[in-house]
Amino acid sequence: MVWTNSKDSALRERAQAVIPNGMYGHQSVMLLPDDYPQFFDRAQGAYLWDMDGNRYVDFLCGYGPNLFGYAHAGIDQAYFDRAKLGDTMTGPGEAMVLLAEAMTAQVSHADWAMFCKNGTDATTMAMMIARNHTKKNTIVLAKGAYHGAAPWCTPVKNGVAPSDRANQVFYEYNDVESLEAAVKAAGSDLAAIFASPIKHDTFIDQELPNPEYARRARELCDEHGALLIVDDVRAGFRLARDCSWSLVDVKPDLSTWGKAVANGHPISALLGSDVCRFAAATIYATGSYWFSAAPMAAALETLKLIAQTDYLERTIALGERLRSGLDEAAGRHGFALRQTGPAQLPLIMFDDDPTSAKGYLWNNALLKRGVYFHPWHNMFICAAMTEADIDDTLNAADDAFKVVKDAGPLEPVAKIAFLHQMVDGH
Amino acid sequence: MVWTNSKDSALRERAQAVIPNGMYGHQSVMLLPDDYPQFFDRAQGAYLWDMDGNRYVDFLCGYGPNLFGYAHAGIDQAYFDRAKLGDTMTGPGEAMVLLAEAMTAQVSHADWAMFCKNGTDATTMAMMIARNHTKKNTIVLAKGAYHGAAPWCTPVKNGVAPSDRANQVFYEYNDVESLEAAVKAAGSDLAAIFASPIKHDTFIDQELPNPEYARRARELCDEHGALLIVDDVRAGFRLARDCSWSLVDVKPDLSTWGKAVANGHPISALLGSDVCRFAAATIYATGSYWFSAAPMAAALETLKLIAQTDYLERTIALGERLRSGLDEAAGRHGFALRQTGPAQLPLIMFDDDPTSAKGYLWNNALLKRGVYFHPWHNMFICAAMTEADIDDTLNAADDAFKVVKDAGPLEPVAKIAFLHQMVDGH
Repeated sequence: MVWTNSKDSALRERAQAVIPNGMYGHQSVMLLPDDYPQFFDRAQGAYLWDMDGNRYVDFLCGYGPNLFGYAHAGIDQAYFDRAKLGDTMTGPGEAMVLLAEAMTAQVSHADWAMFCKNGTDATTMAMMIARNHTKKNTIVLAKGAYHGAAPWCTPVKNGVAPSDRANQVFYEYNDVESLEAAVKAAGSDLAAIFASPIKHDTFIDQELPNPEYARRARELCDEHGALLIVDDVRAGFRLARDCSWSLVDVKPDLSTWGKAVANGHPISALLGSDVCRFAAATIYATGSYWFSAAPMAAALETLKLIAQTDYLERTIALGERLRSGLDEAAGRHGFALRQTGPAQLPLIMFDDDPTSAKGYLWNNALLKRGVYFHPWHNMFICAAMTEADIDDTLNAADDAFKVVKDAGPLEPVAKIAFLHQMVDGH
Repeated sequence: MVWTNSKDSALRERAQAVIPNGMYGHQSVMLLPDDYPQFFDRAQGAYLWDMDGNRYVDFLCGYGPNLFGYAHAGIDQAYFDRAKLGDTMTGPGEAMVLLAEAMTAQVSHADWAMFCKNGTDATTMAMMIARNHTKKNTIVLAKGAYHGAAPWCTPVKNGVAPSDRANQVFYEYNDVESLEAAVKAAGSDLAAIFASPIKHDTFIDQELPNPEYARRARELCDEHGALLIVDDVRAGFRLARDCSWSLVDVKPDLSTWGKAVANGHPISALLGSDVCRFAAATIYATGSYWFSAAPMAAALETLKLIAQTDYLERTIALGERLRSGLDEAAGRHGFALRQTGPAQLPLIMFDDDPTSAKGYLWNNALLKRGVYFHPWHNMFICAAMTEADIDDTLNAADDAFKVVKDAGPLEPVAKIAFLHQMVDGH
């Protein structure tokens, strides 16, 4: 089938009229290679179809939520069955208690759970609970880490008042000295240290957490009576069947969850330990759909699959097959890739590509060959992918390397310069 | 059937172990009469069943989302059909454009739409867009109005840093002089005036907007180059088939929506006019599930019913039948009620009941008779209610008045004193 995008183009034109800039947020393709489709027709398993009928093996997985495959029969049935009985009611259903029990059983640091809708809801509640617990205000965060899109954390400063960013001190991820300096700068006002489970910032090489850094964060919180918050919204249940920092044997006081927790059904969560249960019980946080029963039923089913299947080992093995295959293919064409992050959450960039020109061309060529990759955001392997999907991807990648090689010298990607202006710290 | 609550009690005990305080947010029954059930088994049309099988005519409607009846067949089918094709994908579906077109066609001030999950998302984006548009920071808000649960607006101050409340000036709703004074206090830094479409604060008599006040808010924004924001999250499409301030012939620059927009499926929205389109296009706001297709398909179906049925006239007529019937019944027993707000969004309190003792006893007696009322939050009439439901409610109310009469002198409600301590401005 010849790749076309006429239907997507027509829809984008209509979107321009009624949506600011035609689209917004993390799913806007404004900063992706030009041919990336903005709208999708359907999704099933590991695949995504755009409006023009082009099929992709989707390595974005909805930017995280798709863990067991799009439109997963068992999870969706749990959702539909519950929705037919009542979803958003005047109070929660039994599923809320069952889910809180299941989440606290699954995540070893957690004694209690609260549910919400956005990852930002969970990180904002975590901040509020830390402030309520300590009666202090300063939070220490890693520079460049993404913790949501509220005024206190959005990466773009337009519309943000300076007061929204008060009481924040930044450190370099994985750098113990920098963390200690930030804590020192917080003085006697330290409420919390925020940490991403891994460094999964956009646009740069990903990093696993240095165990010494993670342990020091825990110690510093203990020394100061502050709370340690691990923001597992993006990576949760993709690195471990527990909080991601179980891998470095460090238990936070609070962890934030979302994305994969209900395989795409709308729910996020904040888990906490007993030390801050009272502080959690005395803040006010709520939302119109936070207590809806159907996403909780879907999350219960998802948690069963997390506990009982080999999804984790499978996504790791698929990620490793992709990684080694890509390295080989790149080498064959005289390229070197920077493949960073855990194999199942890969970020892939070209070495020696300061303007992203090679990466953009390569991603675009992959797109035309039925593979949806991202040039500067970590990707996700889902459990619905097969070895055949990976092998198809490797074949497409081989062709795409040829395209880059044949193109010769490339112009810098203008969009990227724009992004660097927009985003903090770049 | 004898009213019992043993299953609810057992579930509440389990909830205490794994959820802070057993429940949180606006659906916690902590501040309601003691017997109010916390958990619900199912919901259909106008009815709600608790865990013990007690059925209620539900006048809370999920605190707003239920406009056309719980588990509405047509709306839910649209949701399910779309979810089976793909819900949370790597980009939005066509439904996002169709919904933006439908919302801007339905709401006369609106030229564009953005979708999100919580009402708080929409009000927060409105604030950011006003700040981005004006490059100023101060927002002017009505004292006691609810605009969400983020640190900048949550009614409880625990966990809120003083800086979260910077750049805010308050006025008395419906009071032109007070509004003018607040704008004056904002000086040259005015970014926006927030207004609820009606005064629907908890605990006090509701008020319709004084047209002179609404017009003055519009004028003041125009004079200062600031944006007028009407927060229609709770009342949207319950007062009009347009923005609620169409009733006073005042067009805001931004309006926020949620609750009834998809009859309980998780979506909220921000609508804006062209004047602030660029400002909207240049903030960063996003969420994991903001672009999910299924709630948009449900919203499209809901909008059809809003445009094409007599739901509005019907809910008003039912509300008026309830209001006049309750006044009559109260009078027969020697009580007087304060019934305020639009008939379809009633708040009902006893006259001469400073400690809420009569109200709590009456609400509790109604509960035992199959009617779910709220003693201090506005209620909602939904289009699935019938005249028979209202008449059953009036019969139950008659009995409940007898209970209050027979009880003689009552103790003050201790919970209410606690609430007054917790909440701003009370």
